[in-house]
Amino acid sequence: MRPDAAALAASQDRLVEKEFVTSLGIKTAPYIAVDDAGALARAVAQIGRPAILKTRRFGYDGKGQVMIRDGSDLGACFRGLGNVATILEGVVTFAKEVSVVAARGMDGSFAAYDVCENVHVNHILSTSLAPAQISDECAAEAVACARRIADALDYVGVIAVEMFVIDEPRVGAGAKQTIRVNEIAPRVHNSGHWTLDGAVTSQFEQHIRAIAGWPLGVTTRNGAFVEMRNLIGDDINDWAKILAEPGACLRLYGKAEARPGRKMGHVTRILPRPPKP
Amino acid sequence: MRPDAAALAASQDRLVEKEFVTSLGIKTAPYIAVDDAGALARAVAQIGRPAILKTRRFGYDGKGQVMIRDGSDLGACFRGLGNVATILEGVVTFAKEVSVVAARGMDGSFAAYDVCENVHVNHILSTSLAPAQISDECAAEAVACARRIADALDYVGVIAVEMFVIDEPRVGAGAKQTIRVNEIAPRVHNSGHWTLDGAVTSQFEQHIRAIAGWPLGVTTRNGAFVEMRNLIGDDINDWAKILAEPGACLRLYGKAEARPGRKMGHVTRILPRPPKP
Repeated sequence: MRPDAAALAASQDRLVEKEFVTSLGIKTAPYIAVDDAGALARAVAQIGRPAILKTRRFGYDGKGQVMIRDGSDLGACFRGLGNVATILEGVVTFAKEVSVVAARGMDGSFAAYDVCENVHVNHILSTSLAPAQISDECAAEAVACARRIADALDYVGVIAVEMFVIDEPRVGAGAKQTIRVNEIAPRVHNSGHWTLDGAVTSQFEQHIRAIAGWPLGVTTRNGAFVEMRNLIGDDINDWAKILAEPGACLRLYGKAEARPGRKMGHVTRILPRPPKP
Repeated sequence: MRPDAAALAASQDRLVEKEFVTSLGIKTAPYIAVDDAGALARAVAQIGRPAILKTRRFGYDGKGQVMIRDGSDLGACFRGLGNVATILEGVVTFAKEVSVVAARGMDGSFAAYDVCENVHVNHILSTSLAPAQISDECAAEAVACARRIADALDYVGVIAVEMFVIDEPRVGAGAKQTIRVNEIAPRVHNSGHWTLDGAVTSQFEQHIRAIAGWPLGVTTRNGAFVEMRNLIGDDINDWAKILAEPGACLRLYGKAEARPGRKMGHVTRILPRPPKP
């Protein structure tokens, strides 16, 4: 099975994932395992507020997590997640959220797409922009971390690693951008959807190449900047307008009903310069 | 139904097709309808040899046609095609074979891809190169002819028009390139397969846009030159080599058996300059 069960095990439990990443010498947000309300109180005392309490398993798109703020009732927060094993994470003050989507082949070959920067709205990915507007040094560090993770898992296939970029002050120099790994997704990833219309080889083809033992494809970006915007819920009603926009590439997922928060499709735009914020 | 039955009627019978094109003031190869062996003898006397005898209907990839050469037995040729209605066509001495793949929308909008030049081997398309290496004047004429045809049919969808480019000598000047329409294909076309990986909007998406009444997409070519090569029969055995070639885009059709002459897939290459002949 590719990717194998070890890769799944390392990413489906937030505690195991953080311990694995930390064991590779890669930084994450501060974290403490929390198995009961008493442990939560001790963890909050150590990490401080605000912090985020997350179920160790089965969370996605902001589901299975609660923010611990100044006035939060810790017992209610723990019970609210269902009295299951959780992890308390410190809040990282980040400059940007980025991800590295990359592939590792059966022969250990490795090919990363451009680091892309992601904007989440209501815990759901809203836009991805490639390449991320971060320092070359930071981009290289991000790719190196993703590769270290993929190598340690002897991973085969497409993998995405979500990271925070933080500005670390330096004495006598400007801030230095460094990364904190947030999450490993052992699969093709929403933040790699821009590669469908915006790169020579899409992440989907790349995954098949990897798991079939074929050579990895070229990850070159098409155009100066590529922006992917998710169409969430009613956003989909703009489809006709998007279709009329020269060069906009529209992908619809064929879902019958446009419920709020539901990813209905995405649009990719090849841009001559970065979009205005 | 889009395209409608009239478009089908105009293209499924070689005689009707040639008469339709001629009625628009567009040149074709010389032709004469031939319904029996006696008519064939008279037609050959008029058009000369070599000439090509083709069934009016159901021909493709060189099937349903026979070359009338100097020593050919006319009765045998006619019977060999099954004693059906045929058409005798004069052989055009062409400089290049090209095609225009274009779309016409429900509102009459029209968008053509770059004219591409095609090489046939054993009557089967071998390669297409976009843009065709012909004069700008000739390319404009080719697109104008395709548009006149699509407009006259009130066509909706993707249409391909195959043409010959011939060098017509001019007094006191170099040869002038002009076109002769060979065949109308009221559908997406093999010579448009390069648009899948080599253009912003593929011919397949474009066809859906057209028949759904959506705005036509941008037909801009990716890269300086785009070459599509069909993988015919055993060519498919090179798939691993092609996959390892940086930037080559491989498309396989999933056909179970690689019979000679069978189109098994194609490979598209984005090139910085035209390929060497």
